[in-house]
Amino acid sequence: MIENVVIIGAGNLATQLALAMVEKEIRVKQIYSRKIESARELAEKVNASFTNELAQLTSDADLYVIAVKDSAIQEVLENLNLDESRLIVHTAGSVPMNILEGFTNTYGVFYPLQTFSKNRKVDFADIPICIEANHPSSFLKLEKLGAKLSSSVNQINSEERRTLHLAAVFTNNFVNHFYSIGAEILQDKKLDFDLLKPLIRETAAKVQTLQPFDAQTGPAKRNDQSIINAQLKMLHNKPEFQKIYSFATESIFQLQQKHKHDLL
Amino acid sequence: MIENVVIIGAGNLATQLALAMVEKEIRVKQIYSRKIESARELAEKVNASFTNELAQLTSDADLYVIAVKDSAIQEVLENLNLDESRLIVHTAGSVPMNILEGFTNTYGVFYPLQTFSKNRKVDFADIPICIEANHPSSFLKLEKLGAKLSSSVNQINSEERRTLHLAAVFTNNFVNHFYSIGAEILQDKKLDFDLLKPLIRETAAKVQTLQPFDAQTGPAKRNDQSIINAQLKMLHNKPEFQKIYSFATESIFQLQQKHKHDLL
Repeated sequence: MIENVVIIGAGNLATQLALAMVEKEIRVKQIYSRKIESARELAEKVNASFTNELAQLTSDADLYVIAVKDSAIQEVLENLNLDESRLIVHTAGSVPMNILEGFTNTYGVFYPLQTFSKNRKVDFADIPICIEANHPSSFLKLEKLGAKLSSSVNQINSEERRTLHLAAVFTNNFVNHFYSIGAEILQDKKLDFDLLKPLIRETAAKVQTLQPFDAQTGPAKRNDQSIINAQLKMLHNKPEFQKIYSFATESIFQLQQKHKHDLL
Repeated sequence: MIENVVIIGAGNLATQLALAMVEKEIRVKQIYSRKIESARELAEKVNASFTNELAQLTSDADLYVIAVKDSAIQEVLENLNLDESRLIVHTAGSVPMNILEGFTNTYGVFYPLQTFSKNRKVDFADIPICIEANHPSSFLKLEKLGAKLSSSVNQINSEERRTLHLAAVFTNNFVNHFYSIGAEILQDKKLDFDLLKPLIRETAAKVQTLQPFDAQTGPAKRNDQSIINAQLKMLHNKPEFQKIYSFATESIFQLQQKHKHDLL
């Protein structure tokens, strides 16, 4: 059973995961970060020791969680100096599990599918935790750990995980960017972004029960060229927004046509 | 004071507005729809009479709400046969108030900034209601009506309203389309869309307190070309999604650069 962990990383995900673990009485023994100040800051929150030297990691934790940016995982692995029996996981959506091969005998992935900020507390209870491991016994350990944190623990392989991550880029990163565009459009006319907040909430709430395709509304769906043209004209001094407006409109139209065609 | 209304239209907005009014004890006297069955269906829900003939509208309502699609407003107006003292509003984001000029002496706009579906009940209490009128006395009447339905009643002119509508297209229609793309990406690999739902909720929840620009995360923000290229490759058999992925990524990158530049 996993009773204590070392967290390698002190960024958004590392922070929220460490906090969630401590809340469920899983001990966070140590925090590593390249920057000692970041390590200290998180360590203090979860009552752990901290280091900025991978060679100084405590050697007897039940689990080592690598929660650094994707491009730094390889370097972390090359500088770890742990007993081959230690269970190591990474937390990245788009990095295959086998990056861990050769560095330890037991490894896996522990990927919470959510967007994290350092200072925004998230409730782990409903976050889908996607688990993969190279041995059934490790899988079971990770599954039990996941179940302490969340009601949604899922066996997801590396290929599936990268698909989830790709879909998450559309539904989180790109969606948030459209919120930014909306905010900028309003700001230019001194209108309050608060006016859009109930709409943003309802748009997200709708697809919790409806299929997104069935929830689609608006000028592009109706192919209302008169509004589409008027709105494109309003964006004449924002050529980059105009371009993305055309593209999104065209893409909605294509998806509508495709579904119609699929129904024939 | 507006104590009773006629609703012209029986679509998503008309339905939810009629239901919300009745709940607040504003009487819906009559429903008009081009299709008699649609008129009947909504009328039964709100205990109103119904018609598919504009000439048969009851002549003595305190307010006539035109809640038909934008392109049908003009035709409705031309076929109305009401006393010039009647207060008439439309509910459209992108149609200027002055479309009503000449058809009555008192007119305005009553625009609830929200996405509506016929069968999904919405709570009007926090929906921003955007009001405009051609006379202060009509404005006050509409403001009082709005305040019965919602805690957010806003004086918004036609120019501001079309800006809000444009921003709403980005934050609602385009956002929902990205939910659809996410759903399709998962469906192709037999992955459950439920896995994305907590992420979608949190993405919308974040910008209720953070500025969207500050909430941005992901490979495009980090300019992580290795993931961006890998994800573009995954979309090789979906050229239309690939195209929109490139565009959104480029647009996020540009906005990041612009903000950096603005800070210099």
